[in-house]
Amino acid sequence: MSPATESLLQALRHGAPMQQRRAMAKAITLLESTRADHRQQADALLEALLPHTGKALRLGISGVPGVGKSTFIEALGLWLVARGHRVAVLAVDPSSSVSGGSILGDKTRMEKLSVHERAFIRPSPSGGTLGGVAAKTREAMLVCEAAGYDIVIVETVGVGQSETAVAGMTDLLCVLQLPNAGDDLQAIKKGIMEVADLIVINKADLDPDAATRAQATITSALRLLGLHGRAADTDHDDGLPRVMQLSALQGQGIEAFWGAVQTFVERQRQTGRMQSRRQRQAQAWMWERIDAGLREAFAGHPGVRERLAPLTEAVLAGRTVPSVAARELLRAFLSAANGAAHATPDAPAQRC
Amino acid sequence: MSPATESLLQALRHGAPMQQRRAMAKAITLLESTRADHRQQADALLEALLPHTGKALRLGISGVPGVGKSTFIEALGLWLVARGHRVAVLAVDPSSSVSGGSILGDKTRMEKLSVHERAFIRPSPSGGTLGGVAAKTREAMLVCEAAGYDIVIVETVGVGQSETAVAGMTDLLCVLQLPNAGDDLQAIKKGIMEVADLIVINKADLDPDAATRAQATITSALRLLGLHGRAADTDHDDGLPRVMQLSALQGQGIEAFWGAVQTFVERQRQTGRMQSRRQRQAQAWMWERIDAGLREAFAGHPGVRERLAPLTEAVLAGRTVPSVAARELLRAFLSAANGAAHATPDAPAQRC
Repeated sequence: MSPATESLLQALRHGAPMQQRRAMAKAITLLESTRADHRQQADALLEALLPHTGKALRLGISGVPGVGKSTFIEALGLWLVARGHRVAVLAVDPSSSVSGGSILGDKTRMEKLSVHERAFIRPSPSGGTLGGVAAKTREAMLVCEAAGYDIVIVETVGVGQSETAVAGMTDLLCVLQLPNAGDDLQAIKKGIMEVADLIVINKADLDPDAATRAQATITSALRLLGLHGRAADTDHDDGLPRVMQLSALQGQGIEAFWGAVQTFVERQRQTGRMQSRRQRQAQAWMWERIDAGLREAFAGHPGVRERLAPLTEAVLAGRTVPSVAARELLRAFLSAANGAAHATPDAPAQRC
Repeated sequence: MSPATESLLQALRHGAPMQQRRAMAKAITLLESTRADHRQQADALLEALLPHTGKALRLGISGVPGVGKSTFIEALGLWLVARGHRVAVLAVDPSSSVSGGSILGDKTRMEKLSVHERAFIRPSPSGGTLGGVAAKTREAMLVCEAAGYDIVIVETVGVGQSETAVAGMTDLLCVLQLPNAGDDLQAIKKGIMEVADLIVINKADLDPDAATRAQATITSALRLLGLHGRAADTDHDDGLPRVMQLSALQGQGIEAFWGAVQTFVERQRQTGRMQSRRQRQAQAWMWERIDAGLREAFAGHPGVRERLAPLTEAVLAGRTVPSVAARELLRAFLSAANGAAHATPDAPAQRC
């Protein structure tokens, strides 16, 4: 570890509030860098931080634009910091590669929380695939935890895949829903109900009847899908209301929401499910990065780059069998590796 | 192509019925072989067959054990061969790596169909991952099509992932359901409703009331999930009954079932959705094989094999950051490739 990274580590762990927040921002910027020397320092920093992580409650918050995520997170965050908690808010924005990052990009959206000394808000990393963006956020989460933040909130927009990514890095994923979506569950994208641990109907004050209808509809859909008593890894039959109403703008229901979160997490801890969920997440994270790295190396290989476009075209036109094309590309990619392993005995150019 | 493969190709394309069926069995065995020379011949054969494929209707049939898949497929198959069709039945059995293959392993389950000269039945390839098993079945499908079979049925058991694999290789996936599952949709595994094009309540004669209830419940669940008017690639709002009743044992409803299949496929053809579905499938198949090949090469690499177990253990124990572990493994794997590309100038052993 370089002296600069060493002093970053010290500031992160033991700095005064302002110094610490600057160090966190700097560390996360280092993690997001694509420069090889930065990556090396970032990895050394992460390994040094790791023993001081894992103690925070990791809470995912998702919902379509307009559902009131920022208002909800600000209300919840202020409620938590008022009770002595330290709250970090991160984001996974899959559209950030196009838009340059929208979630939390405008900090004024949470203007009271963002200036609170026990809060830290960081916009979504931008660029790259969803997997890449999510991986950066996972690493940023470790920075926040090592700095002593005991609650890490990860925000994402409700577009399906990103919920799955956020469910894969948090202890509990909460999906916010509008009350008027009750009669038409197309608003809840497919797959989201399966990864959501808690569904919150926000803005319930706008139309209490609609909110109640929405709650009933969603509950019945969950029951139909058999998602009330889920697989062995989670348990939603323990009295936790899986669907609840709330009005973040009016400040109504935050306490009940936090109670539900606590109940869920406590139970997960007691039954050992939290630890097994985190272990599964860690292993999946490792393999997700391995797969991404393999694909990147594959796509960047000269032999593959030469053949990929014409072979894809041939596959789409029905001129080549997909599995045969795959094997040809794999041979091109792997021949270099085999070449290295067996080069000396066979390659004439290497003989004297 | 070797002379043996050349004559296999001829027998497949132009052989007399018995000779052709033997050639199909032999070709599929060749495809399933893991020997490198066999694989090379198999690829040459596949490429030669490809121009003669793609004309069959590809129908997926799924359902839990006991739902009556064999009886249904036998009834449907006999009905089809009686009308001049040639019917091939293949299978994707994800449990075959454990059990050595159960689906269709006992041909007496379809005793009349299996001896019909216009039918060809082949059990699931055994061993390997679900992806590997599915890939072999996809290739076997091409053999059947090139031999002139105009209907290829792919059977699988109802365990979630395998439905997705079969939906990814067929024009229409039909999920069989028992009538008594109406009150408790846990019987329909999560995700299956999203990939099913048609849901058939089999054994409806056993309890007509329950079957009608099941049909209503499933229809309402589909509506709640917004699966009646699905994404742009399919269209279930065109009058096709997405949920229907049938009694395969009594021979009731086969004609109505086939009518629904025809309506769906005809509409898919007219709107160009069938072609785009098949193109997506072909591309996904290529990438699935690439990913599998990359993972296999990765897992078999000596540098990875040495490090994988201790690093996985460290990740699970929270001693190593998953992304850092992934990068270390990737470096070990890719260094050989880089070594090959740049070996000559740096490696002292290769200089005279």
